[in-house]
Amino acid sequence: MAGSYDRALTVFSPDGHLFQVDYALEAVRKGSCAVGVRGADVVVLGVEKKSVLKLQDERTVKKICMLDEHVCLAFAGLSADARVLINKARIECQSHRLTVEDSVSIEYITRYIAGVQQSGGVRPFGISTLIMGFDSDKVPKLYQTDPSGVYSAWKANSIGRSSKTVREFLEKNYKEDMDKAESIKLAIRSLLEVVQTGAKNIEIAIMGSDSVIQRLELAEIEAVVAEIEAENEKEKEKSKSSNSQQ
Amino acid sequence: MAGSYDRALTVFSPDGHLFQVDYALEAVRKGSCAVGVRGADVVVLGVEKKSVLKLQDERTVKKICMLDEHVCLAFAGLSADARVLINKARIECQSHRLTVEDSVSIEYITRYIAGVQQSGGVRPFGISTLIMGFDSDKVPKLYQTDPSGVYSAWKANSIGRSSKTVREFLEKNYKEDMDKAESIKLAIRSLLEVVQTGAKNIEIAIMGSDSVIQRLELAEIEAVVAEIEAENEKEKEKSKSSNSQQ
Amino acid sequence: MAGSYDRALTVFSPDGHLFQVDYALEAVRKGSCAVGVRGADVVVLGVEKKSVLKLQDERTVKKICMLDEHVCLAFAGLSADARVLINKARIECQSHRLTVEDSVSIEYITRYIAGVQQSGGVRPFGISTLIMGFDSDKVPKLYQTDPSGVYSAWKANSIGRSSKTVREFLEKNYKEDMDKAESIKLAIRSLLEVVQTGAKNIEIAIMGSDSVIQRLELAEIEAVVAEIEAENEKEKEKSKSSNSQQ
Amino acid sequence: MAGSYDRALTVFSPDGHLFQVDYALEAVRKGSCAVGVRGADVVVLGVEKKSVLKLQDERTVKKICMLDEHVCLAFAGLSADARVLINKARIECQSHRLTVEDSVSIEYITRYIAGVQQSGGVRPFGISTLIMGFDSDKVPKLYQTDPSGVYSAWKANSIGRSSKTVREFLEKNYKEDMDKAESIKLAIRSLLEVVQTGAKNIEIAIMGSDSVIQRLELAEIEAVVAEIEAENEKEKEKSKSSNSQQ
Amino acid sequence: MAGSYDRALTVFSPDGHLFQVDYALEAVRKGSCAVGVRGADVVVLGVEKKSVLKLQDERTVKKICMLDEHVCLAFAGLSADARVLINKARIECQSHRLTVEDSVSIEYITRYIAGVQQSGGVRPFGISTLIMGFDSDKVPKLYQTDPSGVYSAWKANSIGRSSKTVREFLEKNYKEDMDKAESIKLAIRSLLEVVQTGAKNIEIAIMGSDSVIQRLELAEIEAVVAEIEAENEKEKEKSKSSNSQQ
Amino acid sequence: MAGSYDRALTVFSPDGHLFQVDYALEAVRKGSCAVGVRGADVVVLGVEKKSVLKLQDERTVKKICMLDEHVCLAFAGLSADARVLINKARIECQSHRLTVEDSVSIEYITRYIAGVQQSGGVRPFGISTLIMGFDSDKVPKLYQTDPSGVYSAWKANSIGRSSKTVREFLEKNYKEDMDKAESIKLAIRSLLEVVQTGAKNIEIAIMGSDSVIQRLELAEIEAVVAEIEAENEKEKEKSKSSNSQQ
Amino acid sequence: MAGSYDRALTVFSPDGHLFQVDYALEAVRKGSCAVGVRGADVVVLGVEKKSVLKLQDERTVKKICMLDEHVCLAFAGLSADARVLINKARIECQSHRLTVEDSVSIEYITRYIAGVQQSGGVRPFGISTLIMGFDSDKVPKLYQTDPSGVYSAWKANSIGRSSKTVREFLEKNYKEDMDKAESIKLAIRSLLEVVQTGAKNIEIAIMGSDSVIQRLELAEIEAVVAEIEAENEKEKEKSKSSNSQQ
Repeated sequence: MAGSYDRALTVFSPDGHLFQVDYALEAVRKGSCAVGVRGADVVVLGVEKKSVLKLQDERTVKKICMLDEHVCLAFAGLSADARVLINKARIECQSHRLTVEDSVSIEYITRYIAGVQQSGGVRPFGISTLIMGFDSDKVPKLYQTDPSGVYSAWKANSIGRSSKTVREFLEKNYKEDMDKAESIKLAIRSLLEVVQTGAKNIEIAIMGSDSVIQRLELAEIEAVVAEIEAENEKEKEKSKSSNSQQ
Repeated sequence: MAGSYDRALTVFSPDGHLFQVDYALEAVRKGSCAVGVRGADVVVLGVEKKSVLKLQDERTVKKICMLDEHVCLAFAGLSADARVLINKARIECQSHRLTVEDSVSIEYITRYIAGVQQSGGVRPFGISTLIMGFDSDKVPKLYQTDPSGVYSAWKANSIGRSSKTVREFLEKNYKEDMDKAESIKLAIRSLLEVVQTGAKNIEIAIMGSDSVIQRLELAEIEAVVAEIEAENEKEKEKSKSSNSQQ
Repeated sequence: MAGSYDRALTVFSPDGHLFQVDYALEAVRKGSCAVGVRGADVVVLGVEKKSVLKLQDERTVKKICMLDEHVCLAFAGLSADARVLINKARIECQSHRLTVEDSVSIEYITRYIAGVQQSGGVRPFGISTLIMGFDSDKVPKLYQTDPSGVYSAWKANSIGRSSKTVREFLEKNYKEDMDKAESIKLAIRSLLEVVQTGAKNIEIAIMGSDSVIQRLELAEIEAVVAEIEAENEKEKEKSKSSNSQQ
Repeated sequence: MAGSYDRALTVFSPDGHLFQVDYALEAVRKGSCAVGVRGADVVVLGVEKKSVLKLQDERTVKKICMLDEHVCLAFAGLSADARVLINKARIECQSHRLTVEDSVSIEYITRYIAGVQQSGGVRPFGISTLIMGFDSDKVPKLYQTDPSGVYSAWKANSIGRSSKTVREFLEKNYKEDMDKAESIKLAIRSLLEVVQTGAKNIEIAIMGSDSVIQRLELAEIEAVVAEIEAENEKEKEKSKSSNSQQ
Repeated sequence: MAGSYDRALTVFSPDGHLFQVDYALEAVRKGSCAVGVRGADVVVLGVEKKSVLKLQDERTVKKICMLDEHVCLAFAGLSADARVLINKARIECQSHRLTVEDSVSIEYITRYIAGVQQSGGVRPFGISTLIMGFDSDKVPKLYQTDPSGVYSAWKANSIGRSSKTVREFLEKNYKEDMDKAESIKLAIRSLLEVVQTGAKNIEIAIMGSDSVIQRLELAEIEAVVAEIEAENEKEKEKSKSSNSQQ
Repeated sequence: MAGSYDRALTVFSPDGHLFQVDYALEAVRKGSCAVGVRGADVVVLGVEKKSVLKLQDERTVKKICMLDEHVCLAFAGLSADARVLINKARIECQSHRLTVEDSVSIEYITRYIAGVQQSGGVRPFGISTLIMGFDSDKVPKLYQTDPSGVYSAWKANSIGRSSKTVREFLEKNYKEDMDKAESIKLAIRSLLEVVQTGAKNIEIAIMGSDSVIQRLELAEIEAVVAEIEAENEKEKEKSKSSNSQQ
Repeated sequence: MAGSYDRALTVFSPDGHLFQVDYALEAVRKGSCAVGVRGADVVVLGVEKKSVLKLQDERTVKKICMLDEHVCLAFAGLSADARVLINKARIECQSHRLTVEDSVSIEYITRYIAGVQQSGGVRPFGISTLIMGFDSDKVPKLYQTDPSGVYSAWKANSIGRSSKTVREFLEKNYKEDMDKAESIKLAIRSLLEVVQTGAKNIEIAIMGSDSVIQRLELAEIEAVVAEIEAENEKEKEKSKSSNSQQ
């Protein structure tokens, strides 16, 4: 069905496809996994960290970035593309502050990012993003954008490698009005579906209604992972014993 | 008949076709279905909502959008293309207000949108639209545009997935001077021809001669769907009994 | 003889052809038929209306348009291309009024339209036009333009679907100095050569030396069609009786 | 020898050809024939008129055009290309008058036209031209230009369909210092080599040293044609009788 | 999997690759090897010098360049590309000094270089870089950039020919808080993994917290190489004797 | 060796060729022959005139043109390209006079022409040129340029059809310090190597140290040709008699 | 390995090559040979002169050119490309003098030339250069640039036809601190490795620490050649006699 339509950025294939956008999504699907979870008065972003090489300084390979004091973005896909997009978004945030004398709303900056992705450059941007933050209404916000320029709001969602599996996990386990601890735990649990190597390859950022970003230390993540494993163990035993009872 | 003419945006094929426009129509035909129905003093737009994922916030995936206080647009096709087109239309509406000191007429903004679609971008826009509204003459207006840039006025029409089936249904069931309830029912009934999953995947917007938009709640749609199913049931029994009488 | 010359807009083929212009003519030949007839002090344009869908508002699919108070254009081919060309022509008419303080002559605006068609856009315009009107000399004018940018004046002519058949009919039946009724009848008779479905698919516009445009109502057209059919009937009987006499 | 060099406007083929220019010449060779004849104090242009369709107004399909009061041009090839070129030449004539306060010389405007043809547009112009006129020296001038941008002066020459045959006829029959009647007769006789249908498909324009253009009426051309035929008849009989005498 | 996607700079392949960037990385992999080592209060850059031709002046083929008084860059890949990038970086350094009245931070200039690489020219830059320096915090910095525009900080890293082997060697032998001598030795030892020809093909530059660059003389490098070889010898004997003991 | 490199104007073939320039040279080789001969205080340009058609005015097909009062150019190749180049050169000559208040030197204008040829247009110019003239030093100058943009000075040289044969003839027969008559005779004799049809197809222009151009009349050329033939005859007889003597 | 990558100027091949630059080097390798030799306080450039055609003025085909009073350049490859590059360099020299009020350093102008070559035009420049000169430090300088834009300093080097052979000869015979005579002899001896036809095809330019250029007369070169041949003869006899002794 593809043929030679797929190299032409701006040309429909006979069945109405824009192949380059589909291929950019493929680049996203190769990226490391990211999740977002919206709690009662908190939003959590979690990403799978590439197993950092032994001598690499991990501060420079962060995949969760601040756009403004109250907006935070995680991405899956090509790092260099993300840097360009994040830069544009940061400048928009600052310029908005200067002209409107108010900070951007989370949806405003999401729409801005999706717009940049929709018009693309010489090729589509090879990234999807999760954007979290609080507006003045103190309600947690979580948005997702993709290479086609579509965006939408979510209670919880996942992008990148195995995002479908993770999203299904989130759908099964999401509860309304989770508190901060529950939200963090859900984010980590869902990432563990994909990340075999545990806490050391997980990065977590949390934002409360005070719009202050908090990044978890490795120890804190390890604690949550341990807790999750303990629960899983209990769960298994329970199901085993219930199995044996049957 | 196609050969390599179909990748060239701006080139006629030997039999006088512009293939890219045809392929964009194919992208529209893949989009979710939308219907428009013009009553006596009311217009109704109805769209098939993509089965929203469990954790998705459906407010951000609306397919019926206001262009101005008195104009409303539903689309079928690529969401990101629609956002660009809607944005342009909204700016035109505002700029018209400022320069002419009057709001746009429904035909004016329709012609504007069709013009943008006709000239296209690097490729045609992958959407068709239904535009409804009231001008100062208090007469309901319903227009349709497509990727080739053609537009026309309709009493009732349908775009997107299975639009041909739905249009035939509309032709069979349209009555002149329907009141608001009848118009809504016809819109929902025609959508049910395509939407198997019932009320929860239907979105309805109504505009009366006061130019106020009204969006139906799920419960309201469910009520109409129930009413329609009851009628259908009665209809069937009637035809059965009449069959058995024969 | 074509090979790959036919995709290149601006390239001659070895035997001196510009294929894209030929293909645009093919798009015209697919369009609905239009005729123009010049009477003694009247000009008539007639077009075959696409069988309007049941719920479509036919006012928005008119194929005869005013360019200025005293100039009227009918086209065959791509509607969206026509709209662009007509818009340009209308602006030229207005701008001419403003700068020269006089309305355009019919030949002036025809030459302008042919010029726009000759230089084309990224591809040739997929339409031919018939232009009618009166200059201050009160002489009826009828011009035709085509996608190559050629224009010429005619006593009567036809463009679009089956235009060759219709032109031959016109050549056989045209008489000098026809009055208004005769001119209308000839236009309708020639269209009936192509339009099987009779009056309801015919659109007629007439301009007298007062430069006032008059559009015929369906009833009026039906009356003429009836008259024509009666005459045809008589004709047949006559020829039959003369046959039987032989 | 051609291969794929012939689609590339600006590329030499291995044997040093510019194919697009050759192909444009082919379009000229498909055009109707035109001749120019320079007499003692007169120049004559003659063209083969396309057999005008029965209802066509032949004034709009003229192939002999004034560039300025004292310059006249005939062309063979694509009409729409000719209109563009003629327009440019006319503007140049006017602008020359305004800036230099003198009318263009015939060679000046010929060089201008050849220059426009040499630089071409997106493709070469598909026409050759014959340009006649008088400068202040009261000497008749006749020039020819072609799609490659070459121009030269001639006593008599021919372009378009069968131009080679006609040129040979001119070479055989040209005499120095012909008067007006002789010049006209030579132009018509040479055209009759190509035009089978006689006077009605011939258009003649004459310019005397007063720089006034004179176009022959059909009757006048018919008279000359009759005269020519009479002479031919006599010629034949003479040769017959001389044959029979032998 | 490649097909014809790989010539198109800005087009994704169906599996989400940007091949030109991959191929530029291939050009880097062909370049001579470079290493960077971060000690306690020192950074060391070492590069494999191309075996300079006998009559060549080696000062002009240096692969370690100053960007500013406190920043130093080593590269692997195309020399001419590097010169362009280095030039841009130097100008940025100067312009930063002038506008901000402060020197660039090491990360700032790294991000700048990566940005230039990400946006690329008509093709990606065929180089990777190692950037070292000290900011006002007196902490040694070591960054790496690559043709895709990605950058990251490292304790020690390697680019160019056999960089993978060298990086693994660095990972095995890197110790925290090495002093200057240890850092230099590690840089040279790791280069010797690739450079068979010893000291004469090695170039070393060192920067201490005073931001003063020091380039090692051949003799100094030879001394270190000798020391390393002695240690290796000892090591071997030790392992031999321990082997014989087993 | 050529393949598809030869259509790409600006691309080297694997063996380092620029094919388009080679092909332009082929167009030159198809052009009529031109020779230049430098005498003691005279320069002579001679060209082979295309056998002018019987009715053509030969003044407009001259291949020897003045660039300025003291510079004269002959060309071989495409006439229309030559006109463009000559025009540019003439303007440069005038503009030089205006700005520097002195006429151009022969080498200056040669370098200018070669520069225009080197940078080319959308394709190389399809001509070579011979440029002759005198600077204030009263020394005769003769230069040649070609489509690659190379130029050089010559005592005598030839371009165009059979130029190699003619150049060899010139090399064999050139003598230092020829007077005007000898220079003219050499130019004509060398042209006769190529031009079978004698004096009538030869055009000669001479410039003496007074920088005045002199064009030979047909009669004058015929006289020289007759003289040459007489000499050749004598030569033959001499060699015959010497042969018979043997 | 090449495929279709080699026509694309700015595209890497899968193994990281830029083929057009390689092909430009091939054009250099086809050019005549040039050598540069740096003595104690002298630099010598020598080039192989194309066997000038008999009537050609050799002053206009010089391959050693002054860039400024103290800088001299020899090139191998396309003459017309060289002229463009040399022109740019000369303008840079003058403009440097005007803005900095000092003449360029040899390295500065070398870097400038290499930069122009690196960025290229629509294709790489088809030349390599040798640049010699003295800065105010009175130290002889010799640089080489190539089509990729790389430059480096040399004691002695060779470019163009058979440059590899010549470079090896130079490496074998170069001695430090040669005086002027020795430097000239080495340059000529190395050229004789390639130039079979001896002194008449050799061009030599010398620059001493006074930055004055000196070009050797043919006689002077012949003297050196004779000297060299004498030495070679002696050498041979010596080796013969030593052979016979063995």
